[in-house]
Amino acid sequence: MKAVRLHEYHQQPVVDEVAEPEIAGPHDVIVKVGGAGVCRTDLHIILGQWDEAMSPTLPYTIGHENAGWVHEIGSAVSNVAVGDTVILHPTPTCGLCRACRAGQDMHCEQSTFPGLDGTAGGMAEYLLTSARACVKLDPSTEPKDVAALADAGITAYHAVRKALPLLYPGTTAVVIGAGGLGHIGIQCLAALTAATVVVVDRNPDALALAGKLGADHAVQADGGQVDAVKDLTGGAGAEVVLDFVAEEGAENEGFAMTRPGGSYFVIGYGGTLVVPTLDVISTERNIVGNIVGTYNELAELMVLAQAGKVTLHTKTYPLDAAQDALHDLDTGQVRGRAILVP
Amino acid sequence: MKAVRLHEYHQQPVVDEVAEPEIAGPHDVIVKVGGAGVCRTDLHIILGQWDEAMSPTLPYTIGHENAGWVHEIGSAVSNVAVGDTVILHPTPTCGLCRACRAGQDMHCEQSTFPGLDGTAGGMAEYLLTSARACVKLDPSTEPKDVAALADAGITAYHAVRKALPLLYPGTTAVVIGAGGLGHIGIQCLAALTAATVVVVDRNPDALALAGKLGADHAVQADGGQVDAVKDLTGGAGAEVVLDFVAEEGAENEGFAMTRPGGSYFVIGYGGTLVVPTLDVISTERNIVGNIVGTYNELAELMVLAQAGKVTLHTKTYPLDAAQDALHDLDTGQVRGRAILVP
Amino acid sequence: MKAVRLHEYHQQPVVDEVAEPEIAGPHDVIVKVGGAGVCRTDLHIILGQWDEAMSPTLPYTIGHENAGWVHEIGSAVSNVAVGDTVILHPTPTCGLCRACRAGQDMHCEQSTFPGLDGTAGGMAEYLLTSARACVKLDPSTEPKDVAALADAGITAYHAVRKALPLLYPGTTAVVIGAGGLGHIGIQCLAALTAATVVVVDRNPDALALAGKLGADHAVQADGGQVDAVKDLTGGAGAEVVLDFVAEEGAENEGFAMTRPGGSYFVIGYGGTLVVPTLDVISTERNIVGNIVGTYNELAELMVLAQAGKVTLHTKTYPLDAAQDALHDLDTGQVRGRAILVP
Amino acid sequence: MKAVRLHEYHQQPVVDEVAEPEIAGPHDVIVKVGGAGVCRTDLHIILGQWDEAMSPTLPYTIGHENAGWVHEIGSAVSNVAVGDTVILHPTPTCGLCRACRAGQDMHCEQSTFPGLDGTAGGMAEYLLTSARACVKLDPSTEPKDVAALADAGITAYHAVRKALPLLYPGTTAVVIGAGGLGHIGIQCLAALTAATVVVVDRNPDALALAGKLGADHAVQADGGQVDAVKDLTGGAGAEVVLDFVAEEGAENEGFAMTRPGGSYFVIGYGGTLVVPTLDVISTERNIVGNIVGTYNELAELMVLAQAGKVTLHTKTYPLDAAQDALHDLDTGQVRGRAILVP
Repeated sequence: MKAVRLHEYHQQPVVDEVAEPEIAGPHDVIVKVGGAGVCRTDLHIILGQWDEAMSPTLPYTIGHENAGWVHEIGSAVSNVAVGDTVILHPTPTCGLCRACRAGQDMHCEQSTFPGLDGTAGGMAEYLLTSARACVKLDPSTEPKDVAALADAGITAYHAVRKALPLLYPGTTAVVIGAGGLGHIGIQCLAALTAATVVVVDRNPDALALAGKLGADHAVQADGGQVDAVKDLTGGAGAEVVLDFVAEEGAENEGFAMTRPGGSYFVIGYGGTLVVPTLDVISTERNIVGNIVGTYNELAELMVLAQAGKVTLHTKTYPLDAAQDALHDLDTGQVRGRAILVP
Repeated sequence: MKAVRLHEYHQQPVVDEVAEPEIAGPHDVIVKVGGAGVCRTDLHIILGQWDEAMSPTLPYTIGHENAGWVHEIGSAVSNVAVGDTVILHPTPTCGLCRACRAGQDMHCEQSTFPGLDGTAGGMAEYLLTSARACVKLDPSTEPKDVAALADAGITAYHAVRKALPLLYPGTTAVVIGAGGLGHIGIQCLAALTAATVVVVDRNPDALALAGKLGADHAVQADGGQVDAVKDLTGGAGAEVVLDFVAEEGAENEGFAMTRPGGSYFVIGYGGTLVVPTLDVISTERNIVGNIVGTYNELAELMVLAQAGKVTLHTKTYPLDAAQDALHDLDTGQVRGRAILVP
Repeated sequence: MKAVRLHEYHQQPVVDEVAEPEIAGPHDVIVKVGGAGVCRTDLHIILGQWDEAMSPTLPYTIGHENAGWVHEIGSAVSNVAVGDTVILHPTPTCGLCRACRAGQDMHCEQSTFPGLDGTAGGMAEYLLTSARACVKLDPSTEPKDVAALADAGITAYHAVRKALPLLYPGTTAVVIGAGGLGHIGIQCLAALTAATVVVVDRNPDALALAGKLGADHAVQADGGQVDAVKDLTGGAGAEVVLDFVAEEGAENEGFAMTRPGGSYFVIGYGGTLVVPTLDVISTERNIVGNIVGTYNELAELMVLAQAGKVTLHTKTYPLDAAQDALHDLDTGQVRGRAILVP
Repeated sequence: MKAVRLHEYHQQPVVDEVAEPEIAGPHDVIVKVGGAGVCRTDLHIILGQWDEAMSPTLPYTIGHENAGWVHEIGSAVSNVAVGDTVILHPTPTCGLCRACRAGQDMHCEQSTFPGLDGTAGGMAEYLLTSARACVKLDPSTEPKDVAALADAGITAYHAVRKALPLLYPGTTAVVIGAGGLGHIGIQCLAALTAATVVVVDRNPDALALAGKLGADHAVQADGGQVDAVKDLTGGAGAEVVLDFVAEEGAENEGFAMTRPGGSYFVIGYGGTLVVPTLDVISTERNIVGNIVGTYNELAELMVLAQAGKVTLHTKTYPLDAAQDALHDLDTGQVRGRAILVP
């Protein structure tokens, strides 16, 4: 089958012909990929930024955002059957460790992260995952239409859901970055809170899209964005800042946009926070890490999507055009999310 | 009356003769000081580190940790009477803003911070505060015996209380710094959790005291403390790190001691956190700011103290010896807390 | 001035001429009443149902839902000035007890409940309250347009806000009773959750109004309402039931509508729950009491109202027609809330 | 093998010779029983009180509180191996439904309840359970010494853990019933809170044991127990009441012991709550259902037990003497828990 594989850091991944995955364990599930999202994390992977944290062996197939159809199942799989339409939680989990049993799929002690840790990912025709990662969908769903929810969606939803208790009426949520994740985060905020939503982005087109999706205020990231947020919040800053960028300076600006007692949610990455501890304690602010989300959160997000409360802006490419999709993302040409269709 | 005033940054405060405070507003309360704690924050103030955040006008009386007896009250004060023994919440609050009404005294929109923001503090014979700051005590209580709870105590208790939901049986709490705040934090952890308590300090005497107060493991801060904590936690790190130092490198080591999903509580200050956002998100860790605590928390802490579950280690000095007390604190000669007695 | 006073239980209150209230304490505020809501609680009061709980001395002025203009203030009042437009939290609180300091205004140890506990209420030209009860409004606000938020609104909002963590996407909230409180509760659910909202009421007009306000399903309370809710929830029942009636059998039906692990919120009253403890534990369900709400919740609700996310359906009557308003409420002739205008 | 089976309601169960269980599914685990707790629920089962809720087919083997050694495992079991010492969560769960994925094992959509729902229970030589129900123990642990933690322990711990956020220093927790569950609940409260613990029981020996386990006050249930609790709590009642009896009137007394804003936790059962909704709302009190607990809670409780913070008071009987054990429990002759040893 075809698979988009990274052979060397700082080089573009290429479409290789590789063997199809095979069922090895009782909980294995092989999915025929219907859509594979292209994520800024793929750009970070190519630059070698995940090498230290994940130590993958090159070459390997990237792609960690998928939906498709169940193709084959292991002997102990009971929750899905061949032919089912599914969207996949990005990390197959064990279901037995404390984290899994507490609903914290992200912290499973034995999970893999296909497409990220060297395990073969989903920019391919078939993907090996596990029973616990499959969310069964209505058979009429087109996998390519929802694939972006599998990672961009769940990650944005996870962060918003964690912030909900802080976002009572009268508060402000700042969204930094109205791209693949951010454009979903804005809609989740609009669906689940009555907070004022302020969106910060460099790109006027992204800001225009944000306004249509429920943002109350748009702030151009032109150097004056911290002051602009302060002005919109009576000088104090926002109760919640959701930073979907967190690189190239956004990270320290994002923290500066929070008010006393406020919380800065880090979702994007690539930059480095430099924060005097005096600034953390004198105002009692928080910095909150976020990664992916739980299986149940993915299921909840599918409810929002089916109800039309979260809609995706996507641009599809054939699997063979993976390099084009990565290039368009890197150069700011994608509104919403790029999706490869095998 | 006598008052310990700071005239210039980087110079020692001196004992001046100043006018006694007077009742000006209906909620004012004047307290005859029975004990005034000496805090590392006083050393930071002398070094000018709070100048930017608080902009005090010099000279002013320092001291923000007090207990004593009510000396005079304003026309609308109903909760205390002249002669009552009281311990004082460090920030007189308005009681009317959203933060006060949500029990978040620390974030009152109109509070002052006597001894810190230029308002006259409590290293003096008399202190002007407000009705809402007074916690009434049993008349038999000696103010000098409990004064350290007014700031060191409430701050340590506040951080521990925020961490409680994370500290179920089987988890580990690391306490960095077993000094004025830390020696109280250790006792709060022992009283309110079944977590394993690991204490990290440079000073062997402080570690010995920690052991007597309920710490399960003592780690000498000799450069290998991050590895030592990892070893004590199966290689993963601790669910909670309470950093009562947060300067001279402790801040970045403290964050490094947390496990995936863990939380690093910043309580001390003076250093600068330098954290790649990738480290924050890949493991979904949190950095939690802490300052002082709520009035209700101070009242709860007094319950623990009265029950003998929190005991203070103090060393008293006459008010005139304020410079000696500051010197002893700065040079690591104080176990627990230094208290000035006017 | 004119005041609607209850002289004997089981008799209609009458409009009497009484002395205007006077400032007695430093935090007192006298408000010129602009609107006074008529509540089912007033009917319960007339029937003597609050006699045991509150022991009021008859005669007294009823009315516990007010907005108006500040007419006179005590010596220590700083948060409002004469002429300000205000809506009033129903219980003047002390601001000093643990409950007040924890934001639990409902549990203040020294509060009064004007209009309910024998203290003169707000169906009158002037009302004596306290500084802490006043929420300052935009001067252009018409008190009679918002008065219903002071009790019906805050109570409905308080219950919904407590239920929010249970109402993630995919869950169902049942609202029993789409009257004065219920019609606000429905809008709060629509504004703050993506839950499916099922409304149960006897009255077809109330159900029609509910549909316009955001209810997803309407169930006529004709004896089959428990089964109807089960059918709408896959046989299991709802995660949350908000019972704004809780009398005449609704209370036990409401509990029966909850699913395993679900919560039944009691907001109305008058009936008696009869529940085998086996039913409580075998399914681990909860029964949650609710009364009024906090001052901050009233302020949050005003934000929703100003944003047009909660609109009131009211019917105004002159103060002299108080008996007509009470009669119309009792006989089901009021959609939304009846408001007396002095 | 031998198994204690119930043939008819209102008759004593008898020791029958039955076939050993066999592995049927990939996640099945057969455990050689080392200890089987005797629970008040077994008495309720015999009286037919669970017939309506669970509809078991008679005869069946009772017993739902077990520890032992892994005897045989299914093809997909990875977390335990033959020979492992284990304690068993009472309900084998699917691991795939929303409840399992949220850590709410008690609400698994596909679980069985061996010994309660007609599935063969653990008063037998061997028990069929599933991989997800097994908590692996140190091999030196004697199953009969810990078996009581599998149901009495987890249930008491679960309720206490839910109550923890309500039990800050200065609050009071009332424990009604110092028997099998209650004597563990008292120790959990002592280990995890600084609350004042008041124990109510009819039996002076049970109260004496409670005092040794950490209770601060003992109240004889002689008719004056509600007043006694009020007296011990300044007239207001307790913040938390944990009712391990909830029959024969204890249930309504338990609710009456709560203070305004307080919570009554139902853990025992058999009685019927009769509560006017006015009493629920006027004081905003809660009634909280509790059943069993989560797998993670059982693991946490094992940590407390291993640390010596929870110790069990047990009386062992051979499996053949099951009727004696049931009789002793029914007649109040057991302090702590009766354990059958096959």
